[in-house]
Amino acid sequence: MIIVLKPGHREEDRRQLVHTLRALGLSVHESKGAKRTLIGAIGDEDVLRDLPLASMPGVEQVIPILKPYKLVGREFKPDPTVVDVAGVRVGDRAIQVIAGPCSIEDRQLLLETAHAIREAGATLLRGGAFKPRSSPYAFQGLGEKGLELLAEAREATGLPVVTELMDPRDTVLVAKYADVVQIGARNMHNFRLLKEVGNLTKPVLIKRGLAATLKEWLMSAEYVASQGNHRIILCERGIRTFETATRNTLDVSAVPLLKLETHLPVVVDPSHAAGRYDLVEPLAKAAVAAGADGLMIEVHARPEEALCDGNQSLKPDRFARVVAEVAAVARAVGRDVGERP
Amino acid sequence: MIIVLKPGHREEDRRQLVHTLRALGLSVHESKGAKRTLIGAIGDEDVLRDLPLASMPGVEQVIPILKPYKLVGREFKPDPTVVDVAGVRVGDRAIQVIAGPCSIEDRQLLLETAHAIREAGATLLRGGAFKPRSSPYAFQGLGEKGLELLAEAREATGLPVVTELMDPRDTVLVAKYADVVQIGARNMHNFRLLKEVGNLTKPVLIKRGLAATLKEWLMSAEYVASQGNHRIILCERGIRTFETATRNTLDVSAVPLLKLETHLPVVVDPSHAAGRYDLVEPLAKAAVAAGADGLMIEVHARPEEALCDGNQSLKPDRFARVVAEVAAVARAVGRDVGERP
Amino acid sequence: MIIVLKPGHREEDRRQLVHTLRALGLSVHESKGAKRTLIGAIGDEDVLRDLPLASMPGVEQVIPILKPYKLVGREFKPDPTVVDVAGVRVGDRAIQVIAGPCSIEDRQLLLETAHAIREAGATLLRGGAFKPRSSPYAFQGLGEKGLELLAEAREATGLPVVTELMDPRDTVLVAKYADVVQIGARNMHNFRLLKEVGNLTKPVLIKRGLAATLKEWLMSAEYVASQGNHRIILCERGIRTFETATRNTLDVSAVPLLKLETHLPVVVDPSHAAGRYDLVEPLAKAAVAAGADGLMIEVHARPEEALCDGNQSLKPDRFARVVAEVAAVARAVGRDVGERP
Amino acid sequence: MIIVLKPGHREEDRRQLVHTLRALGLSVHESKGAKRTLIGAIGDEDVLRDLPLASMPGVEQVIPILKPYKLVGREFKPDPTVVDVAGVRVGDRAIQVIAGPCSIEDRQLLLETAHAIREAGATLLRGGAFKPRSSPYAFQGLGEKGLELLAEAREATGLPVVTELMDPRDTVLVAKYADVVQIGARNMHNFRLLKEVGNLTKPVLIKRGLAATLKEWLMSAEYVASQGNHRIILCERGIRTFETATRNTLDVSAVPLLKLETHLPVVVDPSHAAGRYDLVEPLAKAAVAAGADGLMIEVHARPEEALCDGNQSLKPDRFARVVAEVAAVARAVGRDVGERP
Repeated sequence: MIIVLKPGHREEDRRQLVHTLRALGLSVHESKGAKRTLIGAIGDEDVLRDLPLASMPGVEQVIPILKPYKLVGREFKPDPTVVDVAGVRVGDRAIQVIAGPCSIEDRQLLLETAHAIREAGATLLRGGAFKPRSSPYAFQGLGEKGLELLAEAREATGLPVVTELMDPRDTVLVAKYADVVQIGARNMHNFRLLKEVGNLTKPVLIKRGLAATLKEWLMSAEYVASQGNHRIILCERGIRTFETATRNTLDVSAVPLLKLETHLPVVVDPSHAAGRYDLVEPLAKAAVAAGADGLMIEVHARPEEALCDGNQSLKPDRFARVVAEVAAVARAVGRDVGERP
Repeated sequence: MIIVLKPGHREEDRRQLVHTLRALGLSVHESKGAKRTLIGAIGDEDVLRDLPLASMPGVEQVIPILKPYKLVGREFKPDPTVVDVAGVRVGDRAIQVIAGPCSIEDRQLLLETAHAIREAGATLLRGGAFKPRSSPYAFQGLGEKGLELLAEAREATGLPVVTELMDPRDTVLVAKYADVVQIGARNMHNFRLLKEVGNLTKPVLIKRGLAATLKEWLMSAEYVASQGNHRIILCERGIRTFETATRNTLDVSAVPLLKLETHLPVVVDPSHAAGRYDLVEPLAKAAVAAGADGLMIEVHARPEEALCDGNQSLKPDRFARVVAEVAAVARAVGRDVGERP
Repeated sequence: MIIVLKPGHREEDRRQLVHTLRALGLSVHESKGAKRTLIGAIGDEDVLRDLPLASMPGVEQVIPILKPYKLVGREFKPDPTVVDVAGVRVGDRAIQVIAGPCSIEDRQLLLETAHAIREAGATLLRGGAFKPRSSPYAFQGLGEKGLELLAEAREATGLPVVTELMDPRDTVLVAKYADVVQIGARNMHNFRLLKEVGNLTKPVLIKRGLAATLKEWLMSAEYVASQGNHRIILCERGIRTFETATRNTLDVSAVPLLKLETHLPVVVDPSHAAGRYDLVEPLAKAAVAAGADGLMIEVHARPEEALCDGNQSLKPDRFARVVAEVAAVARAVGRDVGERP
Repeated sequence: MIIVLKPGHREEDRRQLVHTLRALGLSVHESKGAKRTLIGAIGDEDVLRDLPLASMPGVEQVIPILKPYKLVGREFKPDPTVVDVAGVRVGDRAIQVIAGPCSIEDRQLLLETAHAIREAGATLLRGGAFKPRSSPYAFQGLGEKGLELLAEAREATGLPVVTELMDPRDTVLVAKYADVVQIGARNMHNFRLLKEVGNLTKPVLIKRGLAATLKEWLMSAEYVASQGNHRIILCERGIRTFETATRNTLDVSAVPLLKLETHLPVVVDPSHAAGRYDLVEPLAKAAVAAGADGLMIEVHARPEEALCDGNQSLKPDRFARVVAEVAAVARAVGRDVGERP
């Protein structure tokens, strides 16, 4: 950590600061320029993170040097992590496509959709039983009944399933049915929930928060890893910006940046990023071209009857075309679209 | 709701759309211009919100007209709501000052701080027992022990207490000690938690999410109200923007805008907005000048020892000066700084 | 345009509003719901744009229906525009790569770079003679001397050249040398400059402003088109968001969205979007996968000596690899990387 | 400047870097921690700003320490600057109110408005003769005719006038009539225009760009100051964020922050920040409570006839009430609303 002193600081304040740092077991390195004095604190930055150094007398600025995440960082583990979901390997050479409806609404619809996405090349089935809806008056999901239907669809198709957990009280229930437990964008900062899934032995998919920096997102992954669960998949799904032409702004740069910073696999959800079905294909291709390990795409057998996010859902035939297009891009970057095990 | 049809839409698509709307019990009003055909759907917009109208064939754009919130809106209840917290009236003529440390750390420190803020004019005591920290390695709060200390400080000073609830499993516990249950910015979209506090008989303070629009924030309040709890206080605490000179950007316009849209009281937290203690005074004064009903300010008897947010905490003497300055502005806008009951 | 009246508006205000609209030659269509009265004004929305309808008594909200741009819109011209730059066709099947240094600094360096990018497959040469620098103390470009060197490099390589115009007083000078006149992101709202280039017979490349919506950007293009110059290329170069891990956030969704809204060709500048050379390749591939018609990439023979943007410049050999990678993606989406004519 | 080396960097890269820094006349200070090696470059940071250090081999991160602005910084001149505009002192104890129409449209209207704002307590008259409009089809201002009317209104009322310059070719013309030359938000990054007004002997008011950080804004002021003109007024007018309830988000924190960073006076424009007249009063009061030296408010004798920004314009009687309210807040913070000299 570098501490920049104000021009004209009092000598006493400098001494006090150095004393505080040494008392914490850090070695101190001073450097006086014509305009500023810098104090470098060498050692474990963690002991300093909670200390209000910036408001100490004489201090102008505090600059952390080390990254706040450890277990999820490349520095800790240089090799990429492959998360194995019942044989579907996320983070390996093959690009895995997670597809399915926003919410589970009806047995017949779900089975129909599940078979169709399997046919088209999806390797994982998604579907929400618990739905975070911005209105209390909107459909909130079928709950356990939905999870049962999801399990039935898995049975019928062989596709492992991804479903969202919203409430720590449902952890055991959701984990009983899910192959991958999803933490939604709105819960990315729900640290209690992150700790819960950190104690599971199931893979966890963490969506990026609406306004989360990459650093904050990786810290949420660190919460999970710090509890012992290292099977984490990150999912970029668009961030909130001033632009309203799309529901969110897909931050495609996040993909290669995460690849530099973390060993965890990264998938992209173009459906939530765009909020409209007609942009899913170009964004899916862009994500794969940029290095994504997978895609999460909303597909609904009859979007016009969907109780949630129908505008961004693809019909099965269109989804099949998207997968074919994505596969061509995947091959161009030396990858494949995943096959079921 | 207004549905704008694409130029050159098929007559069949228009007919199908009108049919769908009528089947939902809405009356339909068409209007053909030279460039666009508009379809007005009159009736309960709620039946339409989940329908994927925007992706129906022939549709260019869907424009909702009615506001999605009801119970918290001015239209539903034109008169301002005053939330009575053990005699402290939030939303009335007097401006209430909520003050205290970020987290409860130590019995002596808390009591010392509580007495000092009372002396300076605060009418409510804040302090966190459960802390949402971005790092899993940071101090996470004292838990129930912290709540006990908070209750002791209430006993000692007579100040009602505000404390955060992070996990639905702690609802009963927190409600046992708290006079106001706080929902933090990171949980503003935690709909399960909102439902929990909607079932309490205690007042709830909802902080604005980092990237929440006013509409979304009011919908979170609607979640609480829809469960039966109408004693809601809104707390603006800065939003995330491109500007990094402050931790967040205080959206002072939110105060008068909320006053137009909702009957609920609005308080402002300048400490979290700025992230630095030296901006707390000007921002507190700005908030009151703009019409805020209260302030939430971090005060710590010894910020240099704080385990959390020390950089933005005021020392008691400085806090006392801030309250005096705020009181002058309050009088200039026809209000007072609250007195304890 | 739809005008939503407040609940409880005065009948007199409604009548006055209808009167005003009719006096402007619009036909008026009223629709009364249980909660709101809507007034549809049918006819030329332009006559209404400058009118302060939203602040008229009784008005709650004003909703424009038609798009503010005309000449650059797909509705006006459904077929894609191909901009021919001395035989290099931007917007056609081939993806054109514009490459070169941020600023022209030295004859030898420029020639070396120009030959190298030509070799690697670039079809247009970029280089700034006038540089918009955020500091007055930074290198501001060589001015006319730079333009002369650029012309010499064109002579030597056969590559048409793209260069920025910053000041209306330099229009004639820049147009004398440039094959494409560039309007930089910082001047996208410089309406006087846009009018100037609207009167040229040269193609114009308009970069998106740091915080410009797609609508505003298209309106800037409309400024150029409204003066008679329809040879316009749009260049997405990243927008400003809360994320600081990249200099800007590449809005890759802008590419397919613009393809829906406008007939103009769209290129992407991954160098400025990322602000770091190691993200240029994945972002370039993402842009092409999403449908971009071209790329603008900073290349410098010796980035370590660059006077401007060296951190985001590729060395020629790396650039050659990027072009090869991009070409593979281009083929996957049914396109090619452009050949020189 | 601090240069952080990557873990595992090559010794040769470190040596080369140190060599480069020394060759630039900087003294170098190295500090090796367990996890990172830091290199401090002490001396003139300006020689480093254009150097692509971040992309040099072995470099992880480059951290500037010194502020990029000099002449406009508090460090350079600790005492606040008072800009005298024909006797109206901006930056002194009195709060100056700049008022008038968005654009000058009509002689009678302008005179009527000018007299009314003078009566209400304004000390400077604003009005645009050249208007930056987002649509080429909107009213673009009266040009020189407008400047003549403005001069007539100054004559009639004694109020000095503020008007915008958009084009360097109009500098002499605008300076002939204006008492303060305004640089609009859309031209804050128009560096050529900034240099022009840097050569004037008239005060310059620089509005903050839509997405400009405080640092960038101060660098724009530095452009003006670096040419010799130190009579600069900064005007906060709202920034672009995700929130669409207001046209822009007033960054009220910018006021106290600028007071710490610069000696220049700061005024606030609540009309453009909000984009609606009914928020002008609370935002004006907030600005003054936060420490602003002045306000810029749009007033129009008949907003319903305004050709520009009518929705955010106050009528004279409402403006008079706003000034009275603002004056009360000003007194509460130890200031006054300015009197005409």
